[in-house]
Parts: sequence; C-alpha cells; structure tokens
Amino acid sequence: MASNVLEQIKEEITKKLPEEVKLANIEFEGPEVVIYTKNPDIIADNGDLIRNLAKDLRKRIIIRSDKSVLDSYEDAIKKVEEIVPEDAEINDIKFDEVTNEIVIEATKPGLVIGKYGVTSRDIVRNTGWAPKILRTPPMRSEIIDRIRNTLLNNSKERKKFLQTLGARIHQGGKYPSDWVRLTAMGGFKEVGRSCMLLQTPNSRVLLDCGVNVAGQDDKTSFPMLGVPEFSIQDLDAVVLSHAHLDHCGFIPYLYHYGYEGPVYCTSATRDLMTLLQMDYIDIAHRDNNPLPFNAKHVQKEVKHTITLDYGVVTDISPDIKLTLHNAGHIIGSAMCHFHIGDGAHNLLYTGDFKYEKSRLLEPATTRFPRVESCIMESTYGGHEDVTPSRNNAEKELMKTIYKTIKRGGKVLLPVFAVGRAQELMIVLEEYMHHDIIETVPIHLDGMIWEATAVHTARPEYLSKELRDQILHMSRNPFMTESFNQVQNNAERKEIVEGEPSIILSTSGMMTGGNSVEYFKWLCEDKKNTLIFVGYQSEGSLGRKIQKGHKQLPFEDEDGKTRVFNVEMEVKTIEGFSGHSNRRQLMEFAKRLHPRPDKIITCHGDPYKTVDLASSIHRSFKVETKTPVILDAVRLQ
Amino acid sequence: MASNVLEQIKEEITKKLPEEVKLANIEFEGPEVVIYTKNPDIIADNGDLIRNLAKDLRKRIIIRSDKSVLDSYEDAIKKVEEIVPEDAEINDIKFDEVTNEIVIEATKPGLVIGKYGVTSRDIVRNTGWAPKILRTPPMRSEIIDRIRNTLLNNSKERKKFLQTLGARIHQGGKYPSDWVRLTAMGGFKEVGRSCMLLQTPNSRVLLDCGVNVAGQDDKTSFPMLGVPEFSIQDLDAVVLSHAHLDHCGFIPYLYHYGYEGPVYCTSATRDLMTLLQMDYIDIAHRDNNPLPFNAKHVQKEVKHTITLDYGVVTDISPDIKLTLHNAGHIIGSAMCHFHIGDGAHNLLYTGDFKYEKSRLLEPATTRFPRVESCIMESTYGGHEDVTPSRNNAEKELMKTIYKTIKRGGKVLLPVFAVGRAQELMIVLEEYMHHDIIETVPIHLDGMIWEATAVHTARPEYLSKELRDQILHMSRNPFMTESFNQVQNNAERKEIVEGEPSIILSTSGMMTGGNSVEYFKWLCEDKKNTLIFVGYQSEGSLGRKIQKGHKQLPFEDEDGKTRVFNVEMEVKTIEGFSGHSNRRQLMEFAKRLHPRPDKIITCHGDPYKTVDLASSIHRSFKVETKTPVILDAVRLQ
Repeated sequence: MASNVLEQIKEEITKKLPEEVKLANIEFEGPEVVIYTKNPDIIADNGDLIRNLAKDLRKRIIIRSDKSVLDSYEDAIKKVEEIVPEDAEINDIKFDEVTNEIVIEATKPGLVIGKYGVTSRDIVRNTGWAPKILRTPPMRSEIIDRIRNTLLNNSKERKKFLQTLGARIHQGGKYPSDWVRLTAMGGFKEVGRSCMLLQTPNSRVLLDCGVNVAGQDDKTSFPMLGVPEFSIQDLDAVVLSHAHLDHCGFIPYLYHYGYEGPVYCTSATRDLMTLLQMDYIDIAHRDNNPLPFNAKHVQKEVKHTITLDYGVVTDISPDIKLTLHNAGHIIGSAMCHFHIGDGAHNLLYTGDFKYEKSRLLEPATTRFPRVESCIMESTYGGHEDVTPSRNNAEKELMKTIYKTIKRGGKVLLPVFAVGRAQELMIVLEEYMHHDIIETVPIHLDGMIWEATAVHTARPEYLSKELRDQILHMSRNPFMTESFNQVQNNAERKEIVEGEPSIILSTSGMMTGGNSVEYFKWLCEDKKNTLIFVGYQSEGSLGRKIQKGHKQLPFEDEDGKTRVFNVEMEVKTIEGFSGHSNRRQLMEFAKRLHPRPDKIITCHGDPYKTVDLASSIHRSFKVETKTPVILDAVRLQ
Repeated sequence: MASNVLEQIKEEITKKLPEEVKLANIEFEGPEVVIYTKNPDIIADNGDLIRNLAKDLRKRIIIRSDKSVLDSYEDAIKKVEEIVPEDAEINDIKFDEVTNEIVIEATKPGLVIGKYGVTSRDIVRNTGWAPKILRTPPMRSEIIDRIRNTLLNNSKERKKFLQTLGARIHQGGKYPSDWVRLTAMGGFKEVGRSCMLLQTPNSRVLLDCGVNVAGQDDKTSFPMLGVPEFSIQDLDAVVLSHAHLDHCGFIPYLYHYGYEGPVYCTSATRDLMTLLQMDYIDIAHRDNNPLPFNAKHVQKEVKHTITLDYGVVTDISPDIKLTLHNAGHIIGSAMCHFHIGDGAHNLLYTGDFKYEKSRLLEPATTRFPRVESCIMESTYGGHEDVTPSRNNAEKELMKTIYKTIKRGGKVLLPVFAVGRAQELMIVLEEYMHHDIIETVPIHLDGMIWEATAVHTARPEYLSKELRDQILHMSRNPFMTESFNQVQNNAERKEIVEGEPSIILSTSGMMTGGNSVEYFKWLCEDKKNTLIFVGYQSEGSLGRKIQKGHKQLPFEDEDGKTRVFNVEMEVKTIEGFSGHSNRRQLMEFAKRLHPRPDKIITCHGDPYKTVDLASSIHRSFKVETKTPVILDAVRLQ
C-alpha cells in the first residue's frame, strides 16, 4: 500500500518536472514530499516550480541536493567562509547527512541569508549543501543544544520514522470520512491533565496529553487512557497546544508504552516541553514518587516531534490537516485548527489562550477559513471572573513590592517556569529601569533561567516590540544585571537571610519545587510577602494558602514534621494571567470568525465550564456542550 | 481462571450442603449454578436448603438429579401416567438428556403440578426426572414448536455454551468497576434501529439491536456497529427489550459475524422475535433485497437465547445484574434494570413502554429498588402528542367501521403483527359479540395469526382479565369464528372482490408485505377505508399516505409501474398506540421511583426527544440528555 502511494506520486511528479531538475529520487519525510535533484541551481532558484507543484499535488514539497553533487565537509566549510561576510559571526557549522543540509549557526543569521536570500543561494549553488541557518541564541540554551544534538545524532532513525509516517499519512482513507468524534479523556470540568481523542473513520489523534500536578493519585493525576476507543498502538498523531505540564506532561508515557508516531507542535513548545518534562521527572524522582516513564522516553519523544510554524497547513493523517495559530498564552502556544475529510468539518481547539496583548505575546487569533466546532478553555469562565486591567495589576504588584522592600522584607512569587515568570521579569526590569521601584536583586529559581533562554532563542514567537528589542539587541530586557540565577541551596540560604529581594520560583502552584522551600523559610516573618499571580488549582498547596489556611504542617530541615504559622502577607494579584478572563473569553467567542455551530467548553472548574457555556449559548445562539471525562461528542 | 472459579464455588457448596444431598456434581449453566444430586427427594423437597444457599452465594441455584438415579424412558412415562390424573390431558412427553428433565405438555398443567406441587414432587421422587410442565397452547404455535425442537435437538451444544458463559459471568471483574458508559448506536433522535452499548471496565452489553424498516440504505437501516469502542467479538451480552424489529431485527447479524454470547429476553419476546425475524428475512428475499444474514443465524440466535421472567435478578456479566419488568408495550416487552458494580450504579432502560392499562397488558412498572439513570423512549414526546382516551379511540374506530360497512366498503388496518393486531382483535371481537357493530369477517394476513398463537401460549404476560379468560377457557377472545387466517393470493382476491369485511394486515407502516397489496386493490374505490392505528415513521409509505399524498406510483400486476389514485377514505385513529402518549410519558417520569439523577431520551423524532427532555428537566429538576448516534454519555 505505502510503496504504491509513493510510486504514484513519483510518477506524477516525474511527469510534471522539467528535465533540468535532474531528478535523482523522491521520498516521504513525514507530511512532506522530498525531491532530490542533481542540479543544486534548482534549489537556489527557489522558484515557482516547486510552489506550483505543491499546489497541484496539495502536498508540502521540499527540494534537496542529491548526495552525488555534495562537496566534502572541508571544501564546503571553506566555501561558506568565503561567501558569508565576517560580520555574520558564524559560530558553528554542522552537516546533516540525512537531509543533506549544512547547518550554520551565526550571531547575525540575516547576513548568512543575504539580501533576498542571495548569500544562502550562493552557498547551495557552490557546495551542493542546502543551508539551514540558525541564530546563535543570545543566552545559551542548554535544552536547545541538547535537542539539536539528539536530532543530529539520530538523524538516520528519524529519517526512517519520517518515511514510514509519510507513507501512512499519504495512503488515503480506507473509509468515507463521514463522522468526526471527540472523546474527553482529561481536563473537562477540571483544570489539569488536558487530553482528548479526535477520531474519524480513518484517524485517531490525541489533542494534548497532560498531567494534573495537584492530583492525589495516578487516577486523578493522569488522563484516562483507559477509555474503550483509545489504544496507544492505533494512534496516528499527538497534537500539542503548548508546553505546560497540564498539557504535555504525560506524552512520554505514550512513548514508553509503544507509541511510534509524531508529536506536532511549534519549535518553542518542543523546547519548553522537553525542559519541563525533564524537570518534572527530576522532581518526582527527588520526591521519591517516580513517574511511570523516564528521561529515555522524553528522548524518544524528541526524536518523534515534528515542529510546525504558525499558519502552515500540514497533513497529519489520511483525512486531517492541521494548522497552528498564535494563542497568546505562553511562547509557542497554539490554537489547533483541524480541517477534516475534504473540508466536511473544521474543528478549532483553542488550548489555553489569552485574548489580549501582553508584554510577551500578541493576542490570540480569531479569524479562520472555516470553523464548525470549537473546543475552548474556560479557566476564568465564571461570570465573576472579571480581573483588573493589566495596568492596574502592574500597579498593585509594584505597590506591594515597594511596601515589602521598604519594611525590609522579601517578596516570593511562585510562578510557572514558563510564561508568568518572563512576563514578570519584563515588568520588573522596566519598573526598575525607570526607577519606579528600587533596584533589588531578582532571583530566578527552578527552570526559569533556562526557559528564558528559550524565549531569547525563539523571538519569532514573541510580540513585535519584544522581538525587535531582542533581535536588535538595543536592550534585551531578559539580560539585565538585576537577574540572578540561583545555583544551589547555599545560595538560597544566603538569599532568605540576606537583604530585601524578589524571588521568582517554581512550582507555580506550590505543588513541589523550591517555591515551597522558600515559603517555609519566609512564611513565619511578617515582613515578607507571598504574591500569587497565576491560577492555583483545587488540591494544590497554593490554593490552600490562598484560601487563608494559617497553620500548615511541613517537614522541617531535620526531617520532622512541624506546623508552620503563616505570618507573612499573602496576596493574590489577578490580571497577569496567561488565560483570558471572563470578558476576554466572551469577546473571543463573539469575534471568532466564522461563528461555529457548536462550542465545547473545557479546562475549568465544573461551575465555570457550565457558566461560560450557557452564557455563550444565550448570547450568541450557538449550541454548547460541557462534557465530562469519558463522554464522547459527535461533531459531525 | 474459569475452572478455578468453578472449583471455588464447588468447595464452598460442598462445605455448606448436608450429606443427605448426595452431591454428584456442580456445573455452571449460564447465570445459574446447577447442583446434581443422587437423592431426588431433595429436589422434591423444594425446601429452604437451596433458597438459603442461593442467598448465601448471591447466585441463582438449580438442583437436578444425577444421571445414575434416572428411570428409563418407558418406566418414567408409565409412572407419570399413573401419578397424574387423566383430566390433566397430557398431550406430549419428552426427555431432556442434558438437564435431566421430563418435559410434560398438558392441557391443564395445574393438574400435573398438583396442589402445592404435590403431583410434580411425586414425579421426581418416583422417576428421578425433574418435571418441566408446559401448557399445551390452545392455538398451536408453529414457532414455539420449532423453538422447542431446536433447543431439544441442540441441547448438548447449548449446555456447552451455558457452561462457558457461566464461567465468564462468575469469574469476577479484572478492574474496579468505577465507570459506566453508554454509547448511542441507533434509535437516538430517530425511531428505528434501536441500539446502544453499555460499558463498564469489565463488561460490554448491547441493549437492543434493531433495524429501521423504513431506512433508505444499509447506513440508515442498520445500527452503527462501526463505533470505535464496539466489537462483536468482545460483546458479553445482548439484552432485548421486546420483539419488534426496530429493537431486535439486527441481532442475527451479530451471530453471523462471530458473536457467541447470549441474548436475554422474556420467553414471549424470544418466540415473537424469531417469528418476526424469519418473516423479515422472507420478505427481504422476496423483494430481492437480501439481508446481510439469513435463517441459519436466527437459529444460532435461538440456541443462544436465555429467557428471563419478570422480576428475576440475573448476573449477566462480572459486574452487571439484569432484572426485567413489565413495560406494557407488547406481550413480553420489558423494562431492563441494570444493577452495576456492587450497586454503584443502577440504570433503567424503558424500551418502548405504555404507562396505561390496555386490553392486552398491565401498565409499565414504575417502582424499582434503585435507579440513578434512566433511558426512556419519547416516540410521542412532543407537547402536542396528546392522544384521545382509549375509550374515545374505540368509539371512533367503531363509527368508521360502521360507516364503511354500511356503504358496502372494506376496512384496511395496516398493523404490526404483534401488539396492535391483538389489541384490535379483542376490541372488534367484543363489539361484534355485543352487536355494537355488525358481525363481518375479520381477515388476518401476514404473521398476525401466528403472533396471536404466541399470545395464547404465554398468558402469564397478559393483563389479569385476559389471562383469566384464556386460562379458564370461558371465552378465549382470540379464538372466535369471525377471525379468518388468510392463506394465499387467491383468497386475497376473493376478499377484495367479496362482501364488506375488515382486513388486518402487516406491515404496519406499509413498508412492504400484504398491507401494500391490499392498499393497491382497495385504494381507488371511495367506499373503502384505510385506518392507521400505529406510528408511521419518516420515510415509510404509511407516513406518505397519512400526509395526504393522493397519487402514488406502484407496480401493477403485470409488472408495469402506474400511478394509483387514492380515492379511499384515509383515517388516523390515535389512542391505540402501544406507546405512552405525552401525558403518560410525563406521568411516568413523575411516578418513577426512586427519581433518577439523569434521564436520557431516545426513540423519537429529534424535536420530540428534545421537547420531552426539556419538559422533564423543567418539571422535575432532573438532568436530561438527548444524545445522537455516536455520542457516548458517562453515567457514573
């Protein structure tokens, strides 16, 4: 079957391409069709030829040099150094023997590309190798380096995976695609362990596969993979909206239990997902509460991840095309649009989204070619979830910090490593820069530093202003001296015993990690302040403190349990959330174009899920549904 | 596993039984545990011993003689003839070598049983054979004879099936029964092809499996067996509410494609199901539109059917107990009550039901030990579905018949063979008996005669009054001289060309069968009348005529298509329906005790399904759901 499809496509392409292309071979590479040519000029020409072919075949097409026309490594490097101006500051050159690409990392990648791509074209014409040009990140990101190395070191295995996948995707549907169905497996009428199965007669796709870090046991922490219609072996694809653990934390489990298919997400999501999963495994290990998977399975996941840019339509199964769009929630976060069965049905899954411009990101997209059903989050879906404006929230934050520092106290901000941390970093840096608050050290603990590095390495996902700042290096707000990466426990001791400062630490809901340790050190002193700026889910320590619990039992440093008295000031400042508030959710539903026939609400406490659904139903006359886990909803 | 369970039970029973039982063996027989004894007195004693044991083990227990203590056939027959008084009128004696029963058919079975069972006890004491006493039906039922013979001739195969089944049922659940789920596969927001899958972590049970006789193609005629969580091989049981084809018509297909498990239903349902399925196959064959199964598969189904009386609690899977209750719809129709996972959840599926006493049946049951969710039909669930009282309906019918006969016309009543036909027979017979209408021949065409025979053979399912009439033979209303069973086409010709008469003919919605033929013969004469007394589903010829179509194309007797002009009077008389009308549906929901948390409406046009659900929600503050096919609803 598979080889037949490839043969068919080969025949079609061979007929359509002019002889000058000097066709050497045609292969699948995941969703893409790769044409190998013995004439690198064709690649350099970058012309209409391939674009038209792609349009014709309705497939994504890549063109690459055939092995026979490649320079040796030495010759290629020499030529690249001749062609590229020194100002580009090339820092690394590697070769990918599988894709026949020369991977060039430079401080100023624009100069490697050249005006209208002239330099990059010169490289392929002269060396045969197609240049893949990467920016040297202004902050070194260990995780990005590791991912790049994993992919380079395993490129043969990956190539095989992509070929098999391509054959599966392009083989065509066995059955008419006359129904579409969604099964809730996690994150419905609750926050945490987001997971759902999208099914057609020909496809089985998982949308997110997260964990509930505040869960009490395996049953409440992990998605319900035991739903009768789900089987890991039969899964075609995992589509990941963003990198938070409540959306990606359980994906490695799938690879542990036999999944061999792809994860689709943006590149920023892949980097952060890897970072957060590794951290999750480490913490669980340290807490002596090991997870049902380990680092090996994260590595397997990385090898199977296919990154997609916003707006690129990609076949992910015989009858589903996926397009990712900006969701405004955290860097790389995506709304996932599924075009199913020749357009019979179009489904939008919003993931977590912010329908407001933030300091980090542009607001979520609202315009799509078609949308018949929409699954949307409802974290702040209750009609009382009217949060103050971001401006007021910033003022409130500054006032609280100002007061705390003035009285000689320390400020603890438990945050997710990704999203809120960077948002606060920018706010704090700006207010200190303009002397609105006193310049004190801002300590970053947990994965925050590394997550920030990913932000500087993927500026294309950030808001226009921030991207410009980072790219033109005028003043990279993430790289000022006030920020201090906490290294070890000795340093933590110094911090809690030292001068007034601001501490940003994971985990954001105090379900583990150093935010809990800092809390224990700081909570019994009235001068200090604890500020919640993010969602605290039911069952988490954060929620308990937020509710006003004043006496909390913890293990002391000598391993004995004692009751800690919460004397520090506890404050919740709303308005920094990466989630849309109630008004923004309703506004999104109103502006969503075209208006869907059906809206399913998820990712919220039961009451909020239902409240948002009925308000949308009343206001916009759209059918709404509020499924629970194990419910399946027919979409078409 | 299986044998282990049996060994365990054996050990337990052996310990508990006194030595006098002379235990020979213990076996599973479907849901029941059978104890073989070498002391037939124990069977005769009929005592507390077995009852207490059953209570103890929470299993149904049967006690039987061991082979070694059985008389020869001749001796047994001789002794039975000595013991039983001649008045009993024994008509047949057979032996079941597998169950070690002597099957005695008598005109007066009460005399074979004797006062307080004394005669029956004498038989087992003296012959070793346990008597199974059957009533000789007042009308010979060919289908019941065939079923009995099939079972007797295949009793070894059946015994093996029951043993395997018993082991499966009693093996215990592998997983905790912590969820219950229902998948809609047919008959939701529509009438026809009723089918749904009840699932727990340990069980998969199909509730009904019908066809839509008015369907346009396989996709709309048959239930959606392609739902991802369904597989014929993994099915534990089929539970059948009643014998109409829209509930049972597709069961033989399951046996064709590998199903080896049981069908649970009442004995009347089994008899009528077999009758109607065979007829369905014949008609489809005659119409050159063969079904995806044949008579062989009906036979396989019969061999796998386990009949249950109303009110008997039966284990049908490791974590589900089933109890059937009277539904008042047709003879043998049942409401199906499922007690799931040690009582964690109780589900009531009403099937089709009539919450009003009719001439045939008692009204549907409303009291249950526990009910958390209820799936109820909504055929007449629209708020406008207020039908006249039965009394008025009868008057209207008589008036119409009177007028038609007076003007020399014939009355055609298209009816389901089962239910409406017998209801009308009793009404007509009574009105003629009391000279309220003129005594004219009442012709019964199609399976009506045979279906009526089943009614007289299963009086225990009928209303008290009717049962008394039939049992005491004072005046069996089904057996008066006015009724004529139509034999062949020549007779049909005579009827349509002859004197005024009343014709009851299948099919009830004129989707085929002789009702269509009679219509063609009678429709162009103004003197005649067509009366609809039952539901005409969307797409059926009946619905078209009801809506007032006056010109209809049919094939003529010489095979040419010509347009027939509908000149005959066309009348719809509501109030005879076997379905509850709107008021009765609401009344049922109100009286249902205990009140469930959740009511799911099915078996109705989309608008009626929703109308009934929202009325119930508003009136009784119960959560309601109106799923479509492919939706799955979590019940617990």
